[in-house]
Amino acid sequence: MRTQVGIVGAGPAGLMLSHLLHQHGVESVVLDIRTREEIEGTIRAGVLEQSTVDLMVETGVGERVKQVGMVHHGIELRFGGRGHRIDFADLTGGRGVTIYPQHEVLKDLIAQRLADGGDIRFGVSDVQVEDVTSDRPRVRFTQDGVAQQLECDLVAGCDGSRTTTRALVPAPNPRQDHFRQYPFAWFGILAEAPRSSDELVYAHHPNGFALVSTRSETVQRLYLQVDPQDSVEDWSDDRIWSELRTRVAGVDIKDGPIFDKSVLHFRSFVCEPMQYGRLFLAGDAAHTVPPTGAKGMNLAIADVHVLSRAMARFFATGDRSGLDAYTETALPRVWRAQHFSWWMTSMLHRIPGASGFDLHRQLAELDTVTRSRAGRTLLAENYVGTPFD
Amino acid sequence: MRTQVGIVGAGPAGLMLSHLLHQHGVESVVLDIRTREEIEGTIRAGVLEQSTVDLMVETGVGERVKQVGMVHHGIELRFGGRGHRIDFADLTGGRGVTIYPQHEVLKDLIAQRLADGGDIRFGVSDVQVEDVTSDRPRVRFTQDGVAQQLECDLVAGCDGSRTTTRALVPAPNPRQDHFRQYPFAWFGILAEAPRSSDELVYAHHPNGFALVSTRSETVQRLYLQVDPQDSVEDWSDDRIWSELRTRVAGVDIKDGPIFDKSVLHFRSFVCEPMQYGRLFLAGDAAHTVPPTGAKGMNLAIADVHVLSRAMARFFATGDRSGLDAYTETALPRVWRAQHFSWWMTSMLHRIPGASGFDLHRQLAELDTVTRSRAGRTLLAENYVGTPFD
Repeated sequence: MRTQVGIVGAGPAGLMLSHLLHQHGVESVVLDIRTREEIEGTIRAGVLEQSTVDLMVETGVGERVKQVGMVHHGIELRFGGRGHRIDFADLTGGRGVTIYPQHEVLKDLIAQRLADGGDIRFGVSDVQVEDVTSDRPRVRFTQDGVAQQLECDLVAGCDGSRTTTRALVPAPNPRQDHFRQYPFAWFGILAEAPRSSDELVYAHHPNGFALVSTRSETVQRLYLQVDPQDSVEDWSDDRIWSELRTRVAGVDIKDGPIFDKSVLHFRSFVCEPMQYGRLFLAGDAAHTVPPTGAKGMNLAIADVHVLSRAMARFFATGDRSGLDAYTETALPRVWRAQHFSWWMTSMLHRIPGASGFDLHRQLAELDTVTRSRAGRTLLAENYVGTPFD
Repeated sequence: MRTQVGIVGAGPAGLMLSHLLHQHGVESVVLDIRTREEIEGTIRAGVLEQSTVDLMVETGVGERVKQVGMVHHGIELRFGGRGHRIDFADLTGGRGVTIYPQHEVLKDLIAQRLADGGDIRFGVSDVQVEDVTSDRPRVRFTQDGVAQQLECDLVAGCDGSRTTTRALVPAPNPRQDHFRQYPFAWFGILAEAPRSSDELVYAHHPNGFALVSTRSETVQRLYLQVDPQDSVEDWSDDRIWSELRTRVAGVDIKDGPIFDKSVLHFRSFVCEPMQYGRLFLAGDAAHTVPPTGAKGMNLAIADVHVLSRAMARFFATGDRSGLDAYTETALPRVWRAQHFSWWMTSMLHRIPGASGFDLHRQLAELDTVTRSRAGRTLLAENYVGTPFD
């Protein structure tokens, strides 16, 4: 079996890459160890940057996101008992974000790839990428009990944070792994309840951070900063609602049956370079961001936006320069997203061991940012995302 | 002896307060343990915010600063081997900072106070403030071997970071001291050399921060981030110039005889409240900032701008509300200045023990701030200083 680009992983990076390559007339095969049902059924959050939505629309996979996605033109930062709106539309010339869950993006991409005759192999096993430093890398895998071999010109490692392809970039040379663990976690709930707020509320409180988010008219997603040691059992429903009402005082928190509780751990990770020979990493296989900045899926899309054009040029003209420059082209955006996520995180969370000085400084930072149009704009333009080009 | 306001300390806060009170027709006596020669002869840096200069000009002590002060309409941030100008004039509607040493400000204020018949007692000793919770606080002191007593309506503690007046606010209740020590120091030199740059250069380098600043056409002030344990003996002239040229690569560092070397330690301090009974603290007696944001003297002036008006209203109408609100009026600016100083410091310095992730994030922060007009504006408007009102 032969193709131009072998893509390991049918997440946002892999599927969007396959879709974009198709637009350039480049063939690809996408492999994933998960079934289509697993991929489409794993409920995930989704805040899409303006550029992500624009790219989906431009390339013909934007119909549902435009129909069903909830466009948000601002967020609220709460601290010191008061709300401060960050008006994206006003501050960024009409840009905004769209709340549209990741698994819905995946459904759209899968449907489109299949309609376009794309080749996606779900539920494969024993995926192994070989010979990435040669001109003919191969991906071996097993499908329906039969060992297969996919010969490619290029391979894309889009297999998420539990990636196996990343390990093909030899460490510590050239591969450097940059890692940061944060000293807290998010306790997330899904509740059958009406919306408490039309827009996302990011609340700073001496007890810790809280986030009021939404999934639909009837399903709400809310988060509390908790100790990383906490488990789901530590938080009764009553304790959750009471703590949310304390931390987000001033917003009428509407409760309802909680049908999902989970603890999310916070970490930042970047691997550099994002390529080796004919292997190119994209999305979570190359980097992880904490959820505060809502950047994860958007970074995956930004990566493959760069990568798809470099690959298309390579196949059209033989010019390798775009491929050679992939890491240095994609990585600055990744680091800026890491910074933005770190900034939102460190500005809004209770930092264990913080002194009175640290707490006052943090509140003064929120004051500095929200009282200044420049400060609000800096936050807004990073939140809605800078243009891809 | 009686006066309306007894002012302890003839630094920027005390002298400017006395000057501003005089404009409102309020009498004061300023006491300092130092001689006039010491005060006027202690060489200090000085970066004046636009509002500080404006206030000096408006109140008739701005003649020399307008003549001799060097107006800077921007600074340069250097990182990754490149310079990035922060264009204050363009970003803040024509505002800028003025390089004018602190001791020159003091000379101007002393000359004006004496010309206006002001009462400044230099070289006193045994200064002791008493009965601040009564309606008649007193300042005892010794002058020319004679014990004196100054009866006042109000007392201002403007006696700098080695203050004795701060101790009159009982701790820990109501007084809370917020303190932060930074894990590095600045090695500062004064050199007889031509200017290396027309504007200040703030350089980020893996070896550590460096700052190229200036005093005059022929005297330059340069700084290197060093270990807080380092002493003057650790740094030969050759080592200093070589390290400056490494850290500020791309700028032609002009050397010359070094005639002063010193190590500055970094700390942040805020005491809250800034008042107790009829005692009001202003300037370094109440707070200290690290030098990175160039805010120290400006905060002192901002404090007494608030305090002088509150005192004037009190004497004119008996209305205490401005005095009662002094801390809550002045403190937000103090904390924002602490944040700005912390921000400039943490963005530009090598943080001991920082990981590769931390270093890349720091560079991404510099990238985020300098590539965005909003980011540059946020920095510029804090550097030139927000308006006093």
